[in-house]
Formats: sequence, C-alpha cells, structure tokens
Amino acid sequence: MYRSHNCGELRISNLEQEVSLSGWVQKVRDKGFFIWIDLRDRYGITQLILDKERSSNEIFDLGKTIGREYVINVKGLVIERSSKNPKIKTGEIEVLVSELVILNSSKTPPFTIEDQTDGGEELRMKYRYLDIRRPVLKNNLILRHKITQEVRKYLSDKMFLEIETPYLIKSTPEGARDFVVPSRMNGGEFYALPQSPQTFKQLLMVAGLDKYFQIVKCFRDEDLRADRQPEFTQIDCEMSFVNQDDVLNSFEGLIKHLFSSIKNINLDKFPRMSYDEAIKNYGTDKPDLRYEMKFIELNDVTQHKDFNIFNSAELVVGFVVKSGNSFSRKDLDKYTDWVKRPQIGASGLVYMRVQDDGTYKSSVDKFYDESDLKQWANISDAKAGDILFILCGDSENVRKQLGALRVHVADNLNLKDPELFTPLWVVDFPLLEWDEESNSYHAMHHPFTSPKSEHIKLIDSDPSAVRADAYDLVLNGNEIGGGSIRIHDKKIQQKMFDCLGFSKEEAEKQFGFLMNAFEYGAPPHGGIAFGLDRIVALMGGQEIIRDFIAFPKNNSGRDIMIDSPSTISDEQMKELQLKSTKK
Amino acid sequence: MYRSHNCGELRISNLEQEVSLSGWVQKVRDKGFFIWIDLRDRYGITQLILDKERSSNEIFDLGKTIGREYVINVKGLVIERSSKNPKIKTGEIEVLVSELVILNSSKTPPFTIEDQTDGGEELRMKYRYLDIRRPVLKNNLILRHKITQEVRKYLSDKMFLEIETPYLIKSTPEGARDFVVPSRMNGGEFYALPQSPQTFKQLLMVAGLDKYFQIVKCFRDEDLRADRQPEFTQIDCEMSFVNQDDVLNSFEGLIKHLFSSIKNINLDKFPRMSYDEAIKNYGTDKPDLRYEMKFIELNDVTQHKDFNIFNSAELVVGFVVKSGNSFSRKDLDKYTDWVKRPQIGASGLVYMRVQDDGTYKSSVDKFYDESDLKQWANISDAKAGDILFILCGDSENVRKQLGALRVHVADNLNLKDPELFTPLWVVDFPLLEWDEESNSYHAMHHPFTSPKSEHIKLIDSDPSAVRADAYDLVLNGNEIGGGSIRIHDKKIQQKMFDCLGFSKEEAEKQFGFLMNAFEYGAPPHGGIAFGLDRIVALMGGQEIIRDFIAFPKNNSGRDIMIDSPSTISDEQMKELQLKSTKK
Repeated sequence: MYRSHNCGELRISNLEQEVSLSGWVQKVRDKGFFIWIDLRDRYGITQLILDKERSSNEIFDLGKTIGREYVINVKGLVIERSSKNPKIKTGEIEVLVSELVILNSSKTPPFTIEDQTDGGEELRMKYRYLDIRRPVLKNNLILRHKITQEVRKYLSDKMFLEIETPYLIKSTPEGARDFVVPSRMNGGEFYALPQSPQTFKQLLMVAGLDKYFQIVKCFRDEDLRADRQPEFTQIDCEMSFVNQDDVLNSFEGLIKHLFSSIKNINLDKFPRMSYDEAIKNYGTDKPDLRYEMKFIELNDVTQHKDFNIFNSAELVVGFVVKSGNSFSRKDLDKYTDWVKRPQIGASGLVYMRVQDDGTYKSSVDKFYDESDLKQWANISDAKAGDILFILCGDSENVRKQLGALRVHVADNLNLKDPELFTPLWVVDFPLLEWDEESNSYHAMHHPFTSPKSEHIKLIDSDPSAVRADAYDLVLNGNEIGGGSIRIHDKKIQQKMFDCLGFSKEEAEKQFGFLMNAFEYGAPPHGGIAFGLDRIVALMGGQEIIRDFIAFPKNNSGRDIMIDSPSTISDEQMKELQLKSTKK
Repeated sequence: MYRSHNCGELRISNLEQEVSLSGWVQKVRDKGFFIWIDLRDRYGITQLILDKERSSNEIFDLGKTIGREYVINVKGLVIERSSKNPKIKTGEIEVLVSELVILNSSKTPPFTIEDQTDGGEELRMKYRYLDIRRPVLKNNLILRHKITQEVRKYLSDKMFLEIETPYLIKSTPEGARDFVVPSRMNGGEFYALPQSPQTFKQLLMVAGLDKYFQIVKCFRDEDLRADRQPEFTQIDCEMSFVNQDDVLNSFEGLIKHLFSSIKNINLDKFPRMSYDEAIKNYGTDKPDLRYEMKFIELNDVTQHKDFNIFNSAELVVGFVVKSGNSFSRKDLDKYTDWVKRPQIGASGLVYMRVQDDGTYKSSVDKFYDESDLKQWANISDAKAGDILFILCGDSENVRKQLGALRVHVADNLNLKDPELFTPLWVVDFPLLEWDEESNSYHAMHHPFTSPKSEHIKLIDSDPSAVRADAYDLVLNGNEIGGGSIRIHDKKIQQKMFDCLGFSKEEAEKQFGFLMNAFEYGAPPHGGIAFGLDRIVALMGGQEIIRDFIAFPKNNSGRDIMIDSPSTISDEQMKELQLKSTKK
C-alpha cells in the first residue's frame, strides 16, 4: 500500500499513529543531525523528519540523497512538532520516518514549483506537467472540475439531458473557418470539427428531446488573438416550447447556482439592457458594470458656441471620472495620446475639471464660459473633484472610442475588482449587420436566429432595423454566453438564407438536412451557449483563460509540450490521397 | 406560455384545472362528433378531446386539419375519461380543448413513430430526428444521460477530478490509424485526433493530480466492422500510488454503483480470472459467464485407442451442453457444418450423447466402448440428457474454435439473458504478442503497460512469457473496459520501445515528451478506460451500440443525415496547402 493518508490529512488527532505517505519532495532542509522534508501531494504538505538518533543509519543516509521533486514513499510515526506552522493544516504534526523508499528520482525542475514561479510562459507550457504541480494551477483545474460538476447537477435536476453530438461533422464555411479531417474511406472528402453543435442541438429539439445540454469541445481555425484557443469548451444548451424570457430565467438560475454553490455569492436578479442602450451608454455590447462612467450626450449644451470641432460633430459625448480632478497635466496628456493612437483613432480628448472649490477648468475654456461648463456639470452630474472626458465625431466611431477609453480609465484606476461580479443580459440584438468588405448583410449571431415576430415584415424593407430574439450574458465586461430563439419555420429560414446571399443550392447543400427537418414538426425552440473557459477564469478571479486549461496551445496554435502539429508519414498522406503543396 | 404541464404529468387529481399543453400529434381519431388527439412529448402522451357541442366551431374545424406529427399548443379543461386507459399514466383523464394553435405542420413521416417501426436502418439514420422521437430510442438516450451523470457523481465523490485533455494532438502511427487535421497556420503539418487520452492522463499523474477521469470522445480511423464507430466515447480514468488491486477495487465499485443506482441490481464481488485460465477454459479472453459449458480437456481419456484423429491432435477438448441430448440428428449436422465453415475452420465435430437411460451414444462409437464413454462423462460431469461436444487440433486454434461454438450454442439455446449480468475481471495478460505479419512483437495493450515486476528480467530472454499488470473488465462476453498499471520508469519504458522495434529517434519523436516527463518525478500509476457506448447498450439490454448514440455513422463512416464527409471548397484546400490525389 502506497499510502494510508494523503499529505493534507494528518492532524494532532492522529498523534502516535503509524502512517504511510507518498508524494513529491517540495523542500529538504538538512541540518546535520536532522533532515526535514516537506512532502507534497494534491491535498497538501506534510513535514517529515529524519533524525540521526531515532532513524536508522540506512534511512538517514538515503534521506541525504533526496532532491526536489523526488517521489518517495515513507512509513513513520505521527509526532507533535516542536515549532508549529499555523499556515498549513498539517502544521501541528510531523512524521518521524522509519521506512523510506525512493519511488522515482527527479532532475532539477526548470522552474520552481511554487505559486510565484520563475518560469516564463513558454517554458511553463513546455513542462506543463510540472506547471500543474504549482498549487495555483492545480486549484484552477479543481475549480473547473467543480464548476462542470455543478453545471451538470443543476441542469440534470431541471430535467435537461446531456446528449453527445458528433465531432466528425460537415464543413459549412459560413462564420469562422473550420478545422477539417480528411476521410480515408471516402477519398477526397472531408469531415469538419464542429464550431458548435448548433444544428445538432436544433435537430434534438425537432426530435422532441425538449431540454438538452452538453459540455463540449468546439473548434475554430482562426488566427489566434492573445487569449483565444483553437479548441475551447462550451456549455451548450437548448430548450423547446420557450420564449426569450424562459431561456433567460432558466440560465440566470444556472449562473446564480454556480456562484452560490462555488463562491458562496448570492447574485441579485440580473439586469437587462437592450443592445441599443448598451451601445448608447457604454459604447460596447458588453459593458462592464463594476464601475460607472455612463455616457452623457452633450450636443445640446456644446454646439451653440464657436467651437467648430464640436459644432461639426455628429455626436459629442463624454463620461465623468469620479475624483478625476486629481489627474495631473501629464496624466491628461497620456490619456490624450492614448485616444489618438491609431488603434483608437480619436482626434483628441476634451476635458473639464470640476475643481475642489466647485469652479470649472476645461481644455476648451477659450470657447465656453463658466455658465456653459456649469451646464455640462449639471447634465453629467459631475461634482467637485471629478473630471469630465469628452470625445466627438461620428456616432458609431466616437462611441467605440469612448467605450475603449472608459475601460482604459477603469484599468488605470483599478476599478476592476476581480471579486465583484456584475452580470448583465444584453438583449434585442440586431438580426443582421452590414459588412463593408463583402458589401452584404451577415447574421449578427448566426443564420438560425429568429427575428422578433413583429419585425419579420421589415426584413425586406429595412433589414438593419430588424431586431432579433437574441441575447448575450455579459459578466464584468466579458461575453460569457450568447444565444437566441431560433427560426423553426422553413419559410422564414429560407428567407433568412436569401437575405444572407445564399443561393438555393448552397443553402440546400449545407443546411438541407435542417430545412428538411423543419418540415416534420419542428417545435418553437431556443437556447444559449456559455464559454466555459471564460466562466472558470472569471470565477477564478482572472481574465486569462490559458491557466484554466490543462493543456492549452500557444498563440500559434502549437502544443509545445508534445510538439504538435507535426508532419505525418508519406504512408499516411498516401492513404488519405493527399499531397502537400507547401513550398 | 407554451405549457403549464407536460404530456406525461396530468392525473385525476388535476381534474377541473385549466391547463396548457404543447407537443406532437401521435394519433388523431375523428369520430364525426368527437375528435380525439393523442398529444405526445418527451414525458408521455395525453389524450385531447374536441367535441362538436362543447368546442367552438372554429377550433373543431381546425382540429380536422391536423395530421400526425403536427406540433400544436392547446388550452383546455382536465376532465375524467369515460373509458380509462390503465396502460399510460395519464390514462384516467383527457383535456377538453378550448384553444388550439398549430405551431408547425408536418409532412407524413417516412416511417411510423412507434417502438415497432416500419423504417429500415438507413432510412431511420437519414431521418434520425424522427427516429429519436420513438420512445425506445429516446429512452436509450435518457439511459445514457443517467449513466454518465452517475459516473460523474460517483467518481467525483471519490475525489476524482474530471479534466479535459486536448483533441488536437499529435499523430502516433502506433496502434490503430489516426484521424488527422491539417494545420493552416503551420502549413504541411497536422494534428491528430486522440485514439485515447492515454499519454495526457499519464502526464496528469506526473503533474500530481492523483485521481483523474474524463468522459471523452475518442477516434479511430479503422475499416468499420458491423458495430464499430469512428468516434466513440470512453470513461477514461487514471490513479497514482496504486497497484492493480487498488484499480480493480475502485472501478468495481463504480460499475456496482451504476447497476444499483440505475437498474436496482446488486452485483456480487466480481470474480477474477487470469488470461491463461480464460483461454484454457473458454477459448477467449472475454468469456460470457451467463452460461456454463466450461472446457474439459480430454487427451488422457481419448488418446489410448485407434482413433488417429484424436491421437495425433495436440489437444482434444470439449464442453457439455445441458439437455443437449434433445438435439436431433439434423441439429448435429448443422453444428458440424457450422464448425467446418472457413470462418471457424474445424475439421469436424465429435459428440457423445448421454441418453435419458444413462447409456452413451457417440459419433465415434467405432473406436470407443461404453467404459471409455463413461470415463468421458465422468470427467466432464455429463449427466443423463446432456451432450458432450468435442473438437481437436492444435491447442491455440482448437480453443478458439470451441470458444466460438460455445457462443453459437448459447445463441441457439437462448442462454444469453439480457437481464442477467455476469461481470468478470480478466487479469495477467501477456505483455507482448507475436505478430506473424510484421515478424515482431506488438504490445498487447499498449506500449505503456507495465510488465509484472517479477517478470521484467524475462523481457529479453523469453518475451512471450512476460505477464503484465493488465486487466480487462468483461461483461456478458463483451470487453467493457481495459487498463493496466503503467511504466513510470524511463529505463523500462525505453526497454519496452526497444522490444517493440522503435528506433531511438522514433521513440523520441513520438513519445519524447512522456519520456522527458518521467525524468521529473513520475509516480507509480495505473488506470482503466471503459467503453461507454457498450456499457449503455448492455445496461439497456442490447448488444448493438448504434441505437444508444444520438447521431451515429453508418458502416462506411458516413453520417447520412447531414451527408458527411463531403468535398470542401478549393479555397479551403488552398489555405490548407493541400491537393487531392484521388483519381
């Protein structure tokens, strides 16, 4: 038997027991007559002691050969420590070793196995099996396990069925790029890996299964941005005989349950905000509500003077930074430079300080007098000590720019408390968005999203005005889930494909099976999919998903630990009837 | 609101309630003045009644237009049925319809939506969303859901962590063929889809995570036999600091829990049998213990007479069929023909009847007298009314042949009770098996399986004698799980690769990351993987896995519902830097 207890288990109540432990050597302190070893496993650390008087010579000498990360098995007696360590649960005892077996030795690890490690990102990924030994990463994976268990328990109790959908499906070059899988048995043909089980979950609704969920890997062959993974995990859900409210209420329940069961946080009813409101007030469809800085439109109170820049702008809009009057001249220059960077693209930043004595000072004092500025302060509710930031330009761009500035200010002022959680439903998304490049409409969510029934008549006459029964769940400025009520009527689905520029043949080839299914009694249905990686990271108090995935890929889509992707044999290429055209 | 209740919910206690139901029309019985509709959803069937007197004309006329599989929503009053149906839970009531909305119409389905359907296999797969509406398939998927929930609950309670391993991994052409995924970002290179998460779960042990499981899709690009799927689901498990007994006991607990929680069956302690015993006694490493017919070796009592066929055989072996004396001459001819078929390859079948009066009659009476036959009966424990079947030849082949005959007889005599469950651990598998074709040793399980420590010294001198700490769980003649204690020592792993004919370079290229990991403190570890599809099918009382998978592929690996695999666009091929060489 390798162990009677784990390394986090022994207490003062175990005193005088003979125990057996196995684990990794965290630290050795060789004091000549004594050797102390910190033995670590998943559950904790227990201190071992080898003692020149009380241990056999053989054991003691063997103890001297042991290094960091060796795997050992010991037997010994639980004794009370002379100097206790209140920081760890086993801190009152130690184990006096009577038997010692080295199960495996270890080279010196390339970085320290501690929460604060000296290993860089690439090195840690190459030796991921060592990285995961660090408590912080281990705990991330345990958190992930707990969350998925709770998701399953909750949904299962609500009569949802977890049903596996296939991974080898069909390529539909709509949306993101598919990963494809050549078929050897059907030469020249390919499967695709799912970007999501969207059509399958809809078919399960047609099949009458009513309430479906699945925690499932999805795949997107995208050029990777900083925190994207080519394979990622969704909590994928669908329900029949529901409207938007039913779906929102059901999954608000799920998220609340996760927070209460795992973090002991009771979230209030989630606020709901229309897409238009979100854009108008925060310049983004995923506003972070942990902090204020709501937008104030200032056209009425700014366009009556000789300041042509404001006068000629479609929109003059700003927000108040509480206590922002403390910004120095240099701070303000930095913010001005920041909004003028090409990534943001504003032409400049106007500000108005409300000084501690209640007087005003702005960067446009030349054009506006005290009474103008007082009006700005009134309308924006800027108080003594605050600052008002203002941008102007065409509405769409200036809102985006101001939205970015809002997040940037929050970053600088440490307003993003990782332990504060502000969920928000954003609803009533546009059905379509205009794509300049292809000069055509794209589906804002996906082509299966249902327009609001009262807007169906607008699809031909005013497509961009059509709103959909589509919704996102936003948490702390991150979209953690999104979904919609789906089209269940073949004619409307056909209209949607037309509108998106699919030819009859393309629609038939790619989605014929779904259109067919709609002819055999498709129920009204809708659903949602959550990004599990993101939810786990946020609940873990972080925004980077990589450290919440056991074996992530790097930014070039490589697994540098196993060195993949890699070339395959000529034999394999021949069997697949493929040739590389890479030069 | 689409429904206040589901279609399996209403009872006599709901009498006089106004309710709302939604579902599919199972059946319409139009009796002129009355229309009865059976409304179906996932939860059951409720009878609706439209009545020329009590329903409005509009509703009544609309009712006349409704056909099978229409999706409707009704409101109405729960009333007592005049003629009750005790076979269904809602059989005491019906709903008098006051409002009726057709949510969707349906074409006539291509096969009947009933347990006994008129649809052939291919048709049912093409319209899988209709097939799943049949209660039998729906219940299979519900069973699957329950089993996976219980697996997760049980293992999670035992401190196992479910950890997701990657799907885009590295091709290792050892074992079965990989499905590969061309990488666009790394032109000319490929990922592979996992045949199992084997190396990753071992790395998780090196990472210190101690107890891992995952319910996970795996992929094998094999020429498909009748009941194989290119993608299938494993319950994949691994533990550290364990020996074989620990693993067997842990997962015996899991399987017992599944049977008790889901089927209310309490299984006894699982018997264990060595691989050698299984082959010797049943001619197979997965004996079905629902029935007897254990092999009896008869060399000693058959090779002393002039029957040269027995005398020259390496092995004379048989089994007793209880009550087999009832076989007619024609039956016996059929069995003889059956064993002589090329798929079996025996040269003939010898039998000995023990007649009802206790006298013997054999097909070799010419050579053996009553006292010989009496000895055969004694040694094989054949009683009056039984028959003894005997084959002979070289040991390996004759055991296989007799094993096949044993199963065939059991089939014919209906000895395979689908509601009887006989689990069996088969242990002590050979480490290696000789492959005639490649003239080399192959790993019987996989190259990471640990030889028994006392056999390590035999690897060079007598490889085929080496037994491994490898085990299978057999249920009713099916292997439902298999695993082993793994090698955790780099030197032994290297020796194993040598033995399997890997060059140093190949071993390094394919498994270098694992060998590396073994240098940083790998713990002793072992595990098991269960075939979920098979377990669910067996617990559902069937042997065909296809009806326990929501969207299976056919025998050519095609999904005929979505028509996949299929060709991809030239644009996609170009991006992947690939060309098809298919003529």
